[in-house]
Order: sequence, then structure tokens, then C-alpha cells
Amino acid sequence: MASKVTVKAPSSTANLGPGFDVFGLAVDAFYDEVTLTKTKSRITIVTDDNIPTKPDNNTAGLVVKNMKKKFKIKSGVEIKIKKGVPAGFGMGSSAASAAATAVAFDKLFGLKLDGNSLVEFAGSGEKASAGSVHYDNVAASVLGGFVIVKTNPLQVTRVDPPTNLRMCVAVPKLEVPKKKTKVSRGVIPKKVKLTDSILNLSNASAIVAGFMKKDPELIGNSIKDVIVEPARKHMIPGFDKVKENALKAGALGVTISGAGPSVIAFSKSSADLKKISSAMSRGFASAKTECQTVICKPSKGAADKRR
Amino acid sequence: MASKVTVKAPSSTANLGPGFDVFGLAVDAFYDEVTLTKTKSRITIVTDDNIPTKPDNNTAGLVVKNMKKKFKIKSGVEIKIKKGVPAGFGMGSSAASAAATAVAFDKLFGLKLDGNSLVEFAGSGEKASAGSVHYDNVAASVLGGFVIVKTNPLQVTRVDPPTNLRMCVAVPKLEVPKKKTKVSRGVIPKKVKLTDSILNLSNASAIVAGFMKKDPELIGNSIKDVIVEPARKHMIPGFDKVKENALKAGALGVTISGAGPSVIAFSKSSADLKKISSAMSRGFASAKTECQTVICKPSKGAADKRR
Ligand SMILES: Nc1ncnc2c1ncn2[C@@H]1O[C@H](COP(=O)(O)OP(=O)(O)OP(=O)(O)O)[C@@H](O)[C@H]1O
Ligand SMILES: Nc1ncnc2c1ncn2[C@@H]1O[C@H](COP(=O)(O)OP(=O)(O)OP(=O)(O)O)[C@@H](O)[C@H]1O
Repeated sequence: MASKVTVKAPSSTANLGPGFDVFGLAVDAFYDEVTLTKTKSRITIVTDDNIPTKPDNNTAGLVVKNMKKKFKIKSGVEIKIKKGVPAGFGMGSSAASAAATAVAFDKLFGLKLDGNSLVEFAGSGEKASAGSVHYDNVAASVLGGFVIVKTNPLQVTRVDPPTNLRMCVAVPKLEVPKKKTKVSRGVIPKKVKLTDSILNLSNASAIVAGFMKKDPELIGNSIKDVIVEPARKHMIPGFDKVKENALKAGALGVTISGAGPSVIAFSKSSADLKKISSAMSRGFASAKTECQTVICKPSKGAADKRR
Repeated sequence: MASKVTVKAPSSTANLGPGFDVFGLAVDAFYDEVTLTKTKSRITIVTDDNIPTKPDNNTAGLVVKNMKKKFKIKSGVEIKIKKGVPAGFGMGSSAASAAATAVAFDKLFGLKLDGNSLVEFAGSGEKASAGSVHYDNVAASVLGGFVIVKTNPLQVTRVDPPTNLRMCVAVPKLEVPKKKTKVSRGVIPKKVKLTDSILNLSNASAIVAGFMKKDPELIGNSIKDVIVEPARKHMIPGFDKVKENALKAGALGVTISGAGPSVIAFSKSSADLKKISSAMSRGFASAKTECQTVICKPSKGAADKRR
């Protein structure tokens, strides 16, 4: 068996508007690379990036700790992390490390776990960043494509996205608070109107049908969220303008990526993606905020044999 | 052009658990038959069944009224209604009349409307029964199969159900209040917990995926509703027992059909449907209530060329 395994995992966008805590999509904008090496003892983290290196505080470290414990593995593990996914911007950064790590650990120790179990272990790592276990980003990052997450018990359904689906992500240059996910969860109301809940459910259902029917228009025009986006958008300078500009430039649907502050626009390969991307930049500029834009498409997952 | 057109429309089950006001499924348990005949003037309703014959109070009458007005049709119309779908039991009875009527009217006057428009007109008739316009039952009854309804603007997505999907419907012999739909909408809370809304949304999303992946298991184990079913089940004597019995007998999922009081169990062709059906009867019997059970499958719609 190898004593060293390297796995790459993609960034991901959670929620896609109405699918808060349920939908995830793997996105080929950024990748984390994790190399696991067997050592004598202990878990150590090696990285040049600005992330915690104490195993309990790093999503990758926590995944190794949980998997070692579960499978009673005595060997130590060195975790080398090369971050490609910017941390704290709503692109599933902590999840990418966790996803790559779960898949690498599975290979390193020949566990042959199924997709659902890999997602479960990767998700257990998210406690190190978000303070709670959640699966939308890790499921996308592990399995690739579009995912629907049901919990208690965890059941992930994976769908191949339309091959002509394209996205434009605008990552604003902002100081992100350390506990961003916690803060941005705090602004969401604990109770919602039944009518709003029905509206989000109907759009979410149409998004699922859009992915299955390979219909970017149906996906795009169903990216409508009357619960989470209205509560969170005030945390993103210029959000309304970014959204309006992108839609005017031809985007099919626009929303906050994950917990933000990145904004994601959905489109298709025939559209003028450069126009959408500069429209989004102008939106952020109107609020005196610089941003990086990336034109991207759905990605395969860390566990995907075909990558 | 013909001066007389007859159209049959199937019964339907709305909601399928978490998809309140969004999901509908055409069911081959019962059919309404509507014959429209051109007459000199006025709208008249002829029927042997116990339903309103004043056009404004009958869903079929209201559809004819609305379509006549919209297309500036001077001719009168006689509406002959043969009810097959029992009225007021959650099987989309008023919707079946409306659906058959919209399709027949389209044919009688050569309008060649698309599916979405037929659903829109059929839905406008529901005001005569439910007091408000809603589209879940009529969309299923017009288009057949499984439907996802988005409103404002109306956009219906239709999905072919798995060919091996089977249902067992138990229709209890109860006195149903005249304004049942209104009453049963009144018991649903106006505000819901965000966590409940997420739970229903994740299950609804999985139901859509289940219909598209032709997976009765995924559909059945996602028929979980923590919002509407808990609020309404007290209106159905013996509901908990009916559900428990059906699940024990092998049903994949069980819930209230539409606004009730019928209960619907989902299963697949290989299952012992007779066992499920007698299990449901025993459930109702435990609450001293007789019921009629019907083993059935998804149906084509009134507008479906293939029927
Ligand atoms: N391996 C890791 N990679 C990145 N961040 C990590 C890692 N381990 C722990 N963290 C911590 O997690 C936080 C970033 O995660 P957070 O959940 O806020 O954002 P994200 O994963 O980039 O985006 P989102 O979940 O909104 O898509 C940072 O505070 C960082 O210190
Ligand atoms: N053409 C019609 N057929 C049946 N009922 C009608 C019709 N037109 C009006 N109604 C009225 O509508 C009521 C029945 O509709 P209701 O919406 O309560 O139940 P349903 O359509 O059987 O079930 P659900 O909508 O819960 O699936 C009855 O009070 C009946 O008088």
C-alpha cells in the first residue's frame, strides 16, 4: 500500500438561492490539494497558507482524527495542505480541504468507503470551521456535480449538471470576519412565513428538475430565494447592483455563493460570460469594492474516478 | 369543427407530503368525463351528480365562463358532467372537472393552447370550489404524470413517473364539510420553523430527483412532511394507525392525499399491494371508520395525446 497519497478537491457553491443547507455544486474555479503521508505517530499539519495548524481547528486535521479513531488506525499522519480555494469567501474552502482529506485517507489506508461515507467523514471536519457539521459543500466537493443533501440519516443524491452550464463568480476583496459562517447564520430568521417557505420550495424543486433535464434556463430562472438572500445581502457591499448588472448582462440567475460574500451568476456556454463578469465587477466598484471574477463550470469531485 | 367534444380527466393527489401547494400527481383511480356542446347562448350544466349546477359555483362552469370571455366566444355551451372522482375527499375532484373542461373547450373551439395555458384556465375554475386559485391538482389532471408548479408567473414542469410506481389510496367514508379545503387550510400555521422548512425542502428536492431517476424508493422515503401533515392529521380518524399499518405492510411512504381525508401509500409494482390496502383498511377500522381502497398508478392527463 502507498505511504503517501495526494488528492485535489474543487471549490463549491452552497444553497444556489432557495436550497439553503440542502444544495451544493462543485465549481472548477479553485482547488485545494492535500497530501497525506504515513508517519510514526500523531497528526501534524504542514502548510504555507494562513489557516489553523492545530488538527482540532483545521477541517483536514479533524477529518484525519475522526477517521483514525473510527477505523482504529494507530499510524500517524502528516497532512500537507496547498490552499487554492480562498478561505472565508463562500466558495467552500474549509470543505475542499476536508473533502480532499477524506478521499486521500480512504486511499492511504485502503478503506474503499462509499460516497455517502466519504461525505459523512468530510462533513465531520466542518466542525473545525463552522462550529457545526454541515454537508452541502463537502458533498459537492467529494462527489462533484450537483448534490441534494438530506440529513438524519445522511442521504446524498448526486446529479450530473448540464454540460453547457456556466457560472461567473465574483469574489470581493473584503476583510472577512474569522467566524463568518457563524455570523452569517445568525442573521437568518428562525421562523419564516409559510408562503415564503412554499415559494422557496417550488423554486428549489424546479432547480432539481432543471439539473436533471439539463436545462440551464430552468435552473437560472429558479434561483429565487425569499428567505436567506434578503437577510444576508446587506452584509455584501453593492450586492443589489452586482445582481442587477449581471442579470442585465444576460445572466439567467444570480445569488450569494454559500454564506458569501462571493456572488455567483448562472449562465450557459453560448452567453457572453465576459460581459457578465465585467458587469459584476462594475457592481462591486459602485460600492467601492474591488473583486476577482472567475468564469467557471461544474467540476468533478475529489472522489470522482473520471477526473 | 365539431359541435360536441368529450374529454376524460384523471383524479390527482396534491402535495405528496412536503410539496404542499407545489406537487401534483395524476392518479388512474377515478376519472371525470365532461362533454361540451355548442348551444345558442348561455352556459348550462347538466349532471346527475351532487355538485353545484350554477356555472359560477361549479369549477367546470367557471372554466367555460373564463375561456369564453378571454377568447370573446359568443356561442353558448352546455356542460355535461359525469363524476367519477368522489368530491371532497382529497382526490382532486373539482380539479378533474376543470381540467377536462379546459381541454374540451380548447378542442371545441380549435384554440390549440399550450399545456401551461390549459393549466392556467383549468386553475381559474378552482375558485368555485376552494375559494382561491390553485394549480397543483389541475396541472396533474391536465398534463398527467408528476408536476411541479411555480406561480407568478405560472410555470409548470412535468416529469414522467417511474413506470413501476404504484399507489394505494384509502378513501374513508366520512361526512366531508362543504368548505373542506378552506377548513383544512385554516389549520396550517402561517409561520413555520426555518429548520422545518429546510427539512421539507430537502425531502421535496429528493422527491423530484426520485421521479426523474425513476426511483420509487427515493420517492417513498422522501414523503416526509413536518409542516402540513402534523397540522392536518387530527382531522382524519385513525390516521396514525393507517400510516403505521401501511408502512409495516411494505409501503415506501404514506401521507394525506391533498387536503384529505383520503390517505395515499406509495409503493412499487413488485410489492404486495393487496397487503398494503388491507392494512390501511384495518387502520381506519380501528377508528370505527369504513373506507374504500383503490390500488392505482400514475395516469396520463386530459390533454395527453397518448391516452
Ligand atoms: N483547511 C482549512 N481550509 C480553510 N479554512 C479552514 C481550514 N480549516 C479551518 N479553517 C477555518 O475555516 C474558516 C473558513 O471557513 P468558512 O466556513 O467560514 O468559509 P468557506 O468554507 O470559505 O465558505 P462557505 O462555507 O461559506 O462556502 C476560516 O476561519 C479558517 O480559519
Ligand atoms: N365540477 C365539480 N366537481 C366536484 N366538486 C365541485 C365541482 N364544482 C364545484 N365543486 C365543489 O367543490 C367541492 C369539492 O372540492 P374540494 O376542493 O373540497 O375537494 P377535492 O377537489 O375533492 O379534493 P382536493 O382539492 O383536496 O384534492 C365540493 O364542495 C363541490 O360542491
